[in-house]
Amino acid sequence: MTRPYFKLARLWVQSHNILMTEQLEDLFEFLRFPSVSTDSSHAEDVRACAGWLIEKLTQMGLETELHETAKHPIVTARSKHDPAKKTCLIYGHYDVQPVDPIELWDTPPFEPVLRDGRIWARGATDNKGQILAHILGVEAALKEDGELPVNIIFLIEGEEEIGSPNLVPFLQKYKEELACDVIAVSDTGMVAKGVPTMGYGLRGIACCEVTLKGPSGDMHSGVYGGAIANPATAIARLVASLHDFDGNIAIDGFYDDVRPLETWEREAWAKVPGSSDQDTLDITGSPATFGEPGYSSAERLWARPTAEVNGIGGGYQGEGSKTVLPAEAMAKFSFRLVPDQEPKDIAKKVQAHLQKHCPPGVTMEIEVGHDGKPYICDPHSENGKAGQVALEKAFGKAPVLIREGGSIPIIQDLKEILGVESLMMGLALPDCQIHAPNENYYVENFEGGIRLNRALLKELAK
Amino acid sequence: MTRPYFKLARLWVQSHNILMTEQLEDLFEFLRFPSVSTDSSHAEDVRACAGWLIEKLTQMGLETELHETAKHPIVTARSKHDPAKKTCLIYGHYDVQPVDPIELWDTPPFEPVLRDGRIWARGATDNKGQILAHILGVEAALKEDGELPVNIIFLIEGEEEIGSPNLVPFLQKYKEELACDVIAVSDTGMVAKGVPTMGYGLRGIACCEVTLKGPSGDMHSGVYGGAIANPATAIARLVASLHDFDGNIAIDGFYDDVRPLETWEREAWAKVPGSSDQDTLDITGSPATFGEPGYSSAERLWARPTAEVNGIGGGYQGEGSKTVLPAEAMAKFSFRLVPDQEPKDIAKKVQAHLQKHCPPGVTMEIEVGHDGKPYICDPHSENGKAGQVALEKAFGKAPVLIREGGSIPIIQDLKEILGVESLMMGLALPDCQIHAPNENYYVENFEGGIRLNRALLKELAK
Repeated sequence: MTRPYFKLARLWVQSHNILMTEQLEDLFEFLRFPSVSTDSSHAEDVRACAGWLIEKLTQMGLETELHETAKHPIVTARSKHDPAKKTCLIYGHYDVQPVDPIELWDTPPFEPVLRDGRIWARGATDNKGQILAHILGVEAALKEDGELPVNIIFLIEGEEEIGSPNLVPFLQKYKEELACDVIAVSDTGMVAKGVPTMGYGLRGIACCEVTLKGPSGDMHSGVYGGAIANPATAIARLVASLHDFDGNIAIDGFYDDVRPLETWEREAWAKVPGSSDQDTLDITGSPATFGEPGYSSAERLWARPTAEVNGIGGGYQGEGSKTVLPAEAMAKFSFRLVPDQEPKDIAKKVQAHLQKHCPPGVTMEIEVGHDGKPYICDPHSENGKAGQVALEKAFGKAPVLIREGGSIPIIQDLKEILGVESLMMGLALPDCQIHAPNENYYVENFEGGIRLNRALLKELAK
Repeated sequence: MTRPYFKLARLWVQSHNILMTEQLEDLFEFLRFPSVSTDSSHAEDVRACAGWLIEKLTQMGLETELHETAKHPIVTARSKHDPAKKTCLIYGHYDVQPVDPIELWDTPPFEPVLRDGRIWARGATDNKGQILAHILGVEAALKEDGELPVNIIFLIEGEEEIGSPNLVPFLQKYKEELACDVIAVSDTGMVAKGVPTMGYGLRGIACCEVTLKGPSGDMHSGVYGGAIANPATAIARLVASLHDFDGNIAIDGFYDDVRPLETWEREAWAKVPGSSDQDTLDITGSPATFGEPGYSSAERLWARPTAEVNGIGGGYQGEGSKTVLPAEAMAKFSFRLVPDQEPKDIAKKVQAHLQKHCPPGVTMEIEVGHDGKPYICDPHSENGKAGQVALEKAFGKAPVLIREGGSIPIIQDLKEILGVESLMMGLALPDCQIHAPNENYYVENFEGGIRLNRALLKELAK
């Protein structure tokens, strides 16, 4: 059965003279699973998505395994290993972010469509489109050459968007089986269209959620307002205490372990396309840049820590007014960390700050969430250079060297447990809307990703 | 036909030796109309309820009229006017609040039942039970004495729960016909069981809603966090700016027109049952009292203005975490005002404050909501004293004098248009659950209300 969007895809593909209909069909199938890892009602969808991967990787001739965890399964696949060859582990994830606010999507998030040279769907870029490019690169190499230049291990998890809670125990348990010389990851950004990008650093993360409780139920704001604390006001005061007036984080000791930027980084980053203050405004649509004084946008994003509110809520949020004094209010926080901040140490400092600044008249509950360490490596190592050459071959231009603002804590875990560094060769463009409505993936980066995989395996083998 | 609940009512009434079966039957009939004014699907029920009132008041020998408005009708009824007598206008409303959440009601809201000395139904206290006590007081006086000590005008509207949108034009149009010497209202609280209460003040209100916008859509908090302002953080900082550390409102000029408490008020209120700090904790369940320094709970509630957040929201509020930097965040504010603050003046000061304190990096939209003036009168005036005597005669104890924390803007409108002050003699106890599931009305307050009406008309005539 040929579904309508495949017809459209074929039309588009033919008009662009690209013979990748089957690859697009694979991606569309992969994207159609609503594998939202944070939402327990989607547990079966996550599992079905893992099953699809197993089937795909098995058909390619790899030795696959579905590993159960306490929550969502981990998929591994390995080529027949030749001890004379280097081994490259390729990491990715098949789970996706939630889709809220659903009403802002132009097309349903789990019904991928091709439009204007992009694939629109939740997970299109993060991370299904990127990991699938590597899978399809390996598939093409196996079909055309019958063998691979290096040994390959795919490690594809289903819990990245909830902080990979079960991956570290898995890595520890299968340390021997996962032994490798280098790790390749495409789960990061490309600074601008057509500009290949090598990432050598990531921010870490520490999350927590705070609930403040006041009266035992919602109260009439006229009858009781003024004599008891309002939890919505209290949560606002608590959130406001996190920064000083200028935007510096006001938590005691928060900056103690921050590694200063090196001179070459500041100089190189000033020239990276798509990362100026004006680019930040153009991409985000914000009315102004705002952040820690004394740093450029790139420096703020890639080398300085943050304290962000991901969600705040309390009281009546519907249409019109309701004169209620709410029983409780909450805020969800995430702190982005940079080398050499330690998430557990920051979590302690955050809790101490919240305890110290909790306004009077309410009780506080703090729920500590997931965390992950920041990462940094040397982009000028032997494998790093192979990655740079592969990027140049795949995209026709020397890559820029950057750090990333996002967090992939598992990269640091992989380094600590397997003792190997990761080449981060991201295919996400700034307007790919990851984690947001209308997530999309440029078809040219899908193709480029497949070329990148093939070039990388060859360069690593040299 | 005698319905089962009347049998039960009769049994209870007989066992308590109270001869008020007919009055209870009237109340039950009145309560059985689901006259929910905010819900257009109940428009015919509201009208039917007005029709019942017209019939009741006509049967009593009063001259009644049903006045159409743009929405729900207003009922008036007047006794034959003797120019030698004073005229008392009795204001009330026959519309009720919605019943949601319906699942929390122990019995259906529009099937009144008698249990534990209380009548349980939506509107039992607010306001059907209270206004009917006045009607039945007048009925009893007419039956027993053949005439009334004063001229009476009933003014009973069907839109109080939606802010009385059509009452001011009505008052302006019928100013002559509604001319009177004093107004009596039972739509407020009694501080504790068995403690007659005279209210001589109400807080006013000014509402607004603020929306802060940052990036054009939700952003990944890792990829963009640190370089642009977060609207959730910004709304928190804006809300936090409304109060100083101790709980004083920090808006320039906010307290300028606040009438200081008089010494007698502070002394009297310190002795009012049910209004201590401990009572506030017991009633609300809050962990501590909190408010403007230097004032007791009663003083904070009845004589000091507030700046309350009725709702705050932005970003992801669902289960788990989502590392999003939200595109916007909002807060709904209501300011309770006291004499001699002017809502329009306060609205201007609030807007100036919000403009001045809007954090950088976001744009702000302010939507001004409804407002109402505060009210105060002299409880020691001639009519005020008559009201106090009547309360003492009806309940066997001298009344306490209080102001109310809530707002009934129509009381100030009545003062401005008819030039007459209102005696607020509330019959609602703190556990009557007005506006909430399981609304109820103490039978002893129903009886007391009937006695109160008879005593009041006599005292006013003196």
